[in-house]
Amino acid sequence: MENVKVERLLINYKTLEEFKLFKEYGIQELSMLEDLQSNMIENDSESPFYGIYYGNSLVARMSLYTISKKYDQYFEPPQDYLELWKLEVLYDYRGKGLGKKLVDFAKSYNLPIKTNPRINSHGFWEKMNFQKVHYDVERDLGENPLIWLPEGVEEQDRN
Amino acid sequence: MENVKVERLLINYKTLEEFKLFKEYGIQELSMLEDLQSNMIENDSESPFYGIYYGNSLVARMSLYTISKKYDQYFEPPQDYLELWKLEVLYDYRGKGLGKKLVDFAKSYNLPIKTNPRINSHGFWEKMNFQKVHYDVERDLGENPLIWLPEGVEEQDRN
Repeated sequence: MENVKVERLLINYKTLEEFKLFKEYGIQELSMLEDLQSNMIENDSESPFYGIYYGNSLVARMSLYTISKKYDQYFEPPQDYLELWKLEVLYDYRGKGLGKKLVDFAKSYNLPIKTNPRINSHGFWEKMNFQKVHYDVERDLGENPLIWLPEGVEEQDRN
Repeated sequence: MENVKVERLLINYKTLEEFKLFKEYGIQELSMLEDLQSNMIENDSESPFYGIYYGNSLVARMSLYTISKKYDQYFEPPQDYLELWKLEVLYDYRGKGLGKKLVDFAKSYNLPIKTNPRINSHGFWEKMNFQKVHYDVERDLGENPLIWLPEGVEEQDRN
């Protein structure tokens, strides 16, 4: 698996069927399926998902969304940043660096990244050089966000 | 356990020690502990947690926070609402209606409630009359929110 490539996933019935293999299949995917069925979006529209194919099969994916500077409560100076979620590598394809490939792809935009990881994945995120934010209940509520800072960006001081 | 009472929890070392028994102990609790240790908040300050004691032991809890009307993206008309998270009943005390007691307490404010439940708890939330929102990727990102609507309140139409 040397030549893995991260691709932006297209919304179509094949992609949505493949998504069912991932644990965090949920309302986001169902919403995409409904939009496709009701022609609210076209077949093969671009989705907020990026993934890695092995042959013809999707084996890893993440969702990535740009949050506008005006909503930035995390970074200094305030700026557009990426929200990363649903990072997942299918069980049989773990331990091959595919998760890192996806994270490196997100980092390649050179924007700060925020993620709200699942319990028990902190070791992975630490290796990816993500750090815990200084928790702020009004901003973070039930989240335990981790952030990645590109050069020249700091965490916002909320005190 | 007929006379259970929901109480607002105070921040002190006993409470914070009891929180360690709950699965979703994390950055929020650690932040409260640090604030207490550094005298940034006083002993026995009010916390965003509500709980149920059995004798002298905390056996159930939830975190509850009022979100201001100006940030309301869920309800029509826009208004202050409650964000509920970390609802949990300790294993030995389940099946006695304590989760419902906590949710009923939250409902007693007669404000709309939003929660972002853990996977596999949807049956519970359905029984509590919570409903799925119409997913909106820009607003909900990686969340699968459920909401509860008091009389006269509707879900915001985001289309």
